[in-house]
Amino acid sequence: MNANKIAIIADQNAMMLFPNYFDKLWEDIPKFVFSVLPGESNKSIEEATYLWRNLQNNHFDANSLIVNFGGGKVTDLGGFVASTYHRGIPFINVPTTLLGMIDAAIGGKNGVNLEQVKNAVGTFCLPQDIIIDTIFLKTLPPYQLLNGFGEMIKYALIGSQELWNEIKSLSTIHYYEIKKEWIDFCIDFKKKIVAKDPYDQNLRHILNFGHTVGHAIESLCMAKNRPIAHGHAVALGIIAEAHISAHCHQLSFADYEEIKKVILSLYQFNDSILQRAEMSQLMDYISLDKKNNDNLLNFSLLDKIGQASYNHYIEESHCREAVLNMM
Amino acid sequence: MNANKIAIIADQNAMMLFPNYFDKLWEDIPKFVFSVLPGESNKSIEEATYLWRNLQNNHFDANSLIVNFGGGKVTDLGGFVASTYHRGIPFINVPTTLLGMIDAAIGGKNGVNLEQVKNAVGTFCLPQDIIIDTIFLKTLPPYQLLNGFGEMIKYALIGSQELWNEIKSLSTIHYYEIKKEWIDFCIDFKKKIVAKDPYDQNLRHILNFGHTVGHAIESLCMAKNRPIAHGHAVALGIIAEAHISAHCHQLSFADYEEIKKVILSLYQFNDSILQRAEMSQLMDYISLDKKNNDNLLNFSLLDKIGQASYNHYIEESHCREAVLNMM
Repeated sequence: MNANKIAIIADQNAMMLFPNYFDKLWEDIPKFVFSVLPGESNKSIEEATYLWRNLQNNHFDANSLIVNFGGGKVTDLGGFVASTYHRGIPFINVPTTLLGMIDAAIGGKNGVNLEQVKNAVGTFCLPQDIIIDTIFLKTLPPYQLLNGFGEMIKYALIGSQELWNEIKSLSTIHYYEIKKEWIDFCIDFKKKIVAKDPYDQNLRHILNFGHTVGHAIESLCMAKNRPIAHGHAVALGIIAEAHISAHCHQLSFADYEEIKKVILSLYQFNDSILQRAEMSQLMDYISLDKKNNDNLLNFSLLDKIGQASYNHYIEESHCREAVLNMM
Repeated sequence: MNANKIAIIADQNAMMLFPNYFDKLWEDIPKFVFSVLPGESNKSIEEATYLWRNLQNNHFDANSLIVNFGGGKVTDLGGFVASTYHRGIPFINVPTTLLGMIDAAIGGKNGVNLEQVKNAVGTFCLPQDIIIDTIFLKTLPPYQLLNGFGEMIKYALIGSQELWNEIKSLSTIHYYEIKKEWIDFCIDFKKKIVAKDPYDQNLRHILNFGHTVGHAIESLCMAKNRPIAHGHAVALGIIAEAHISAHCHQLSFADYEEIKKVILSLYQFNDSILQRAEMSQLMDYISLDKKNNDNLLNFSLLDKIGQASYNHYIEESHCREAVLNMM
């Protein structure tokens, strides 16, 4: 490591739990810690401006390094700040959540929110390196582990029947059950896809499996002031999109039933998350985002467990049927 | 052109002088005009945020187009906004100044200022297209033409003895004297260099000839509250760096004298721009920016008229001598 100074953009909680984490790394390089508050609402232009100013006031330049230390909020925000400060200086991500490790911190998408729109302003810019340390998982409450596990289920379903077979036998999620090799598989899988399609123009769409319905659930819950974690929404979205995969594409009905059973037993959603009466609102959110000129919805779908394909155009009625059967 | 809507980010003056310029272009596509005030002080994060919000409120997306219509300030600001809105949507530059046409609007560098630091926050992102229309030059006052002409002199000296031979006979600059083929040469030359080194890591440094001293003059004049136009500062910087090219590199003394004579006769600088007593301050600005570990200054220099090379490490005393002989 050959930097003149290091800025650690740190989630306040992560820094409190691991205050000495970086002491032994890069011992001879001066370090500055800039704490940011947890939570999506702080992933803003104002927060980015606060960080740009701090970098400038402390004379950071192209020979400096930024380390983003926290969950997806911090790597999204810090990646954007690093990729635009002096038109881009090097940065490293050190994700502290399962979601960060297998999704947010890799792939080079970053950004901040503008009012209600997530990642409205951002860039594509890969980190120089990503440090994966499962010690951080010990500190996560079950809800946070499940938040990341939604993405892990997705990777299994689109990329590895073997991984699916291993995780489908879990009845609850504890940190010691999450094997390092599962995490490594997810990271490698995403990295390979991103290398083939960095700007999300075709193949990368398969990573979106579960997210068309999942994002709509997130937005609806946000609008109702009952926010749901990303991975939980994606887990529900996976059930719906597996339903579509079975009814409109090649997935077997038995596999769809299995997927639904596994997810519902792990997550134990209760009815208050989404009531039947809200399904038409949910459809509005999905259509808003995804309807094309022919009134069809664009989905990535499962060919079978362990394999997905993209750009399937589906009639709205099939999607409606799927979301009515999510829970 | 296949866009769902167009945002014209327009310099207020350009829009006033050419209100109907875009009426005939892309006739069927809805257009929104967002005016920005002239001047570097408005090239800010706040102005970018105002534009991002306007794009969002008017539902701009990846299928929309941004047109930056104005001088370097507008193409820098608008290029940054376009390259980060939804992680980058297409944009076109329509430069209205000579400086914009041959420099700012091409090459993909964009950005906004943060307090006193120019382009502290920005990206590298090439426009989809650049529309060059010399009709805009008719509206520029002589001072603005000379502002762009500083860069044209630079291109001649680093890239074309032929162009230098043509422009050195001018005694004043009027818009009708500036040949379209000169502009085309500058654009092609810069585009070729940028294609070989888009991120300014080696060859692109030669475009910086005249700018090490030029930037320092700009900063000093700004600090003294007597701002000088970029091209005027670069013209002075060229004299100084040609002096260094003659004393420390291969340029002949006769050519240095010719360069100095041509620039001083075109620009007619008066003593109030930089007083002898301020030269040590100027050296501080240069050193701050450019001094390396061995206390040497890094310059791009002329091998001869029409050819330059980069990464020449020069002792401070030679630079001091050069700035003392600028005027």
